[in-house]
Amino acid sequence: MRAVDIIIKKRDKIELTREEIEFFIKGFVSGDVPDYQAASFAMAVMLNDMTPRETTDLTLAMAYSGDTLDLSDVVDLAVDKHSSGGVGDKTSITVLPTVAACGLPVGKMSGRGLGFSGGTLDKLESIPGYRVDLTTDEFKKQLKEIGEVLTGQSLALAPADGKLYALRDVTGTVPSTPLIASSIMSKKIAAGAQAIVLDVKVGLGAFMETLDEARVLAKLMMDIGRLAGRETIALLSDMNQPLGHAVGNSLEVVEAIEALKGGGPRDFREHCLHVCSHLLVIGKRAKDLDDGRAQAEKAMANGSAFEKFRALVKAQGGDVSYVDEPSKFPRAKYVEVVESPMDGNLSQVQARSVGEASVILGGGRAKKSDSIDHAVGIVVHHKVGDKVQKGEPLFTIHADDEAKLAEARAMTLAAHKFSADDVQPLPLFYN
Amino acid sequence: MRAVDIIIKKRDKIELTREEIEFFIKGFVSGDVPDYQAASFAMAVMLNDMTPRETTDLTLAMAYSGDTLDLSDVVDLAVDKHSSGGVGDKTSITVLPTVAACGLPVGKMSGRGLGFSGGTLDKLESIPGYRVDLTTDEFKKQLKEIGEVLTGQSLALAPADGKLYALRDVTGTVPSTPLIASSIMSKKIAAGAQAIVLDVKVGLGAFMETLDEARVLAKLMMDIGRLAGRETIALLSDMNQPLGHAVGNSLEVVEAIEALKGGGPRDFREHCLHVCSHLLVIGKRAKDLDDGRAQAEKAMANGSAFEKFRALVKAQGGDVSYVDEPSKFPRAKYVEVVESPMDGNLSQVQARSVGEASVILGGGRAKKSDSIDHAVGIVVHHKVGDKVQKGEPLFTIHADDEAKLAEARAMTLAAHKFSADDVQPLPLFYN
Repeated sequence: MRAVDIIIKKRDKIELTREEIEFFIKGFVSGDVPDYQAASFAMAVMLNDMTPRETTDLTLAMAYSGDTLDLSDVVDLAVDKHSSGGVGDKTSITVLPTVAACGLPVGKMSGRGLGFSGGTLDKLESIPGYRVDLTTDEFKKQLKEIGEVLTGQSLALAPADGKLYALRDVTGTVPSTPLIASSIMSKKIAAGAQAIVLDVKVGLGAFMETLDEARVLAKLMMDIGRLAGRETIALLSDMNQPLGHAVGNSLEVVEAIEALKGGGPRDFREHCLHVCSHLLVIGKRAKDLDDGRAQAEKAMANGSAFEKFRALVKAQGGDVSYVDEPSKFPRAKYVEVVESPMDGNLSQVQARSVGEASVILGGGRAKKSDSIDHAVGIVVHHKVGDKVQKGEPLFTIHADDEAKLAEARAMTLAAHKFSADDVQPLPLFYN
Repeated sequence: MRAVDIIIKKRDKIELTREEIEFFIKGFVSGDVPDYQAASFAMAVMLNDMTPRETTDLTLAMAYSGDTLDLSDVVDLAVDKHSSGGVGDKTSITVLPTVAACGLPVGKMSGRGLGFSGGTLDKLESIPGYRVDLTTDEFKKQLKEIGEVLTGQSLALAPADGKLYALRDVTGTVPSTPLIASSIMSKKIAAGAQAIVLDVKVGLGAFMETLDEARVLAKLMMDIGRLAGRETIALLSDMNQPLGHAVGNSLEVVEAIEALKGGGPRDFREHCLHVCSHLLVIGKRAKDLDDGRAQAEKAMANGSAFEKFRALVKAQGGDVSYVDEPSKFPRAKYVEVVESPMDGNLSQVQARSVGEASVILGGGRAKKSDSIDHAVGIVVHHKVGDKVQKGEPLFTIHADDEAKLAEARAMTLAAHKFSADDVQPLPLFYN
C-alpha cells in the first residue's frame, strides 16, 4: 500500500477502505507519510468529501492513534459533552457541576479559545491556582472521588488529530465537514466517551453559519456515533447573538456561577438546563427530558450544583474564595457603560463582532501564542427582540487600555442593530 | 499576502491574480512556502482547475524562478520543439539535424524516460562519450557554431518547475492539465524559446489517452504561448502504437539514423518530415509547409541531414564511428524473433504495453534512480492495419536476461491484437 495511491483514489472520488484510511493515519503519526502527502489528502477530502463510513473509519483511526482513556473502572457509563464553539459559551462550567450534583459523573477535557471563539480552559484559569493539566491518573482519581473533572486534553490522546489539525490550519482545509466531525469525535472517543451530547452552534458567531451546514455536521457526527457504537445526540443551538450576557474570561465565570445558583441571564440558564436534561437522560439518570430538567433545576435551587462547582475548583487546586466572592476577581482598569444611541427593538447583536471585540481587548487570541487578559471583556445587557430606549445601558466594556476600549466600543456598537418594528426573540435551539 | 489565503481562494474556485501566483511560486522556491502548502495548492488546482490566464501567470512565474537563457545574441529567432512523450519517440534525434541542415538553428534541452515513456537523453547516451550536461556557455557556443544542440536541462532553469514536479509525483497531482501545460511551457520559455512546436501525443501509449484530453492540453499550451508572446503550434499525433519500429535506446538511435538518410520505417520518417516542415515555417526558413517538407526531404536525400547529426555527436563528445557504423552498438545477449501466432489483420499494437515490456528488459526506468541498459528493447515489425501471416516475424526482442525475455515476449505478444476483417491504418496526426 502506498500513500500516494490513497490520495489518488480520494482525488478520483473513489471510496476508501478502512485499511487504507488506517494505513494513512498510522503512517502520518509515525512520520512515514510526510506532511505534504497529508496536506494533499486533506484538500482532496475537503473538495471530494467522505461518506459517513469513511469518516467513521477516519475518526476511529485518529481516536486510536495514541493513548486512550478507559473509564470503565471509574464510572458505569462514560458520558461526555462537546460544544462546537461560540461567543459567551460558558456552558460546561455550569452544566458539569449541575449534572454531577444529580448523580451523573462527567470527566471532560476542554479546549482553549482561538479567534472570536472563547475556550473553557481560558475561562477556568481566571480562578487563581486552577489546574487544567491533570495527569491521566489524577483525572481518573478525581472522577471517581467527586464525579466531575474539567481539564485540558492530554497530549497523548489522539495525536493524529492534533497533528492533522495543525496542518489543516495552514493548508486551507479547516472547513471540511468530515474533517471537523472526525476531529471532534476522535477526541471524545479517545477520552473514553460511551455516550455523547453534542451542542452544534449555528449562526453568525459559530463556525457553521447556516442551519443547513450545521445540520449536515450534526447528522454526520450522529452517524459516526452510531457506526462507532457510541450513543450520540446532537443539539442545534443559536449562536447569532452571544450566549448569556458576558463575553470575556472571568466575566463569564461569574455568570456561570450565577446560573449554578439558578440565577444569571435567562437564555443561558435555559440553555444549560436543556443540555443538562439531555446529559441526564443519555447518562441514564433521568427517565425523560422533563425529569432531567426538574432534577437540574432542583440542584440549582438547593445549592448542590454550586457546592459541586466549589468541590471541582478545590479538587483542581483553584482558590475557592473567588467562587464564594466573585467580587475578588481583578477588575479591569476601565469599566465603561455604553448607552443605547436610540429607541428601538434590537434586531441583531452580532455574536462574531462581539467575540472579535473581546479579542481586541485582550480577552481572546488572534494567534495561538497570544496570552490572555482574564479581566477584560464585554457584557451585553440586551438580547435580540428586546425593546430598548435611548440612553439605557446597552453594554459594558471592561478594558485595560483606552485605545482598545475605543475600538471595542465601536465594534460592539456596530454589532447592535435596531428596528422600528417589533422583533421576535431568537430561539435557543433549532430542530 | 499569506500562502494559506491563496490556497483558500483556489479551494473556493476564485480566480487568482498574477501577484498571488508570483508570491506563491517565489515563496515555494525560497522555502517560505513549505511543501505541505504547495501540495495542498496543487490538489486544489488539480480539482478546481485554472483559467488560461492563471496558467499563463503560473508558467511565467515558474519560467522566471531561476536563470533563463537568452539566445538573442546567438540566433535570430530561438525555435524549440517539445514532445509530450511516448513509446518509440526518437523524433528529436532525426528532426534537429534535419532542420539544422536546412539552415534553422535549434538548441534543445531534452529529458529522461520514466515509466513506459522513453527519453531522448537516455537514447543519445547509447553513443559512447555523448555529453548531455553542457554548460550554458557551451550550449550557446555550440548553437552559434554548428546551429544545433541536444542536451539535458540545466538545473538552474525553472527550479520551481523541478521542485513542483517532484512534489506532484508523490501527492497525486500529476494529471492536472494546467500543471502539465505550465510545466512544459515554463521550461521552454526559461530555455529562451520564442517560437515553439509542440507534439502532443494521444492514445494508449501517451499521458493523454483521449483526443478530447489532448485537445484541451494542446489548446491550453497554445493559449499560454499567445498570452506569453511566444508563437506556438501544437500538433496532435497518434501514440496508440509505437512510433516507428524500434523501442529501446540504441535500437532507436539506429532507426533515427536511418530516417536521417531518408530510410527507416515510413510512419516515423513521415512523422519527422511533418514536424520539420512546421519548425521550418515557424522558424521562417520555409514559406509554407510544402516548402518546408521539400527542404527536409532534400536534406535527408543529399546526406546533409546525416552530416549534421555527425557534427552534433562530434561537438558533444560522442564517438562518431558508432554513427557511421551502427553495427558497432553492443548487441544484447539474446536476440529472439517472435513469429505471428496466426493469420490476420493487426488491429492493435498497444504502445504502452510495448513500452512497459522495454522497461522490464531494462531499457527504461520503473523509478527515477534505476539505471538503463542501452542495448535491450523491442522492434515491432508491423503496424496496425498490416496483414500478417502465421509464422511471419511479428517482433524481435533484444534482452540480456532469459526470464525478462520471457516476460517481455508475453507482454508484447498480448499487445498485438488481430482481426479477421480489414483494419484501417492509424493516422499519424489528428486535427
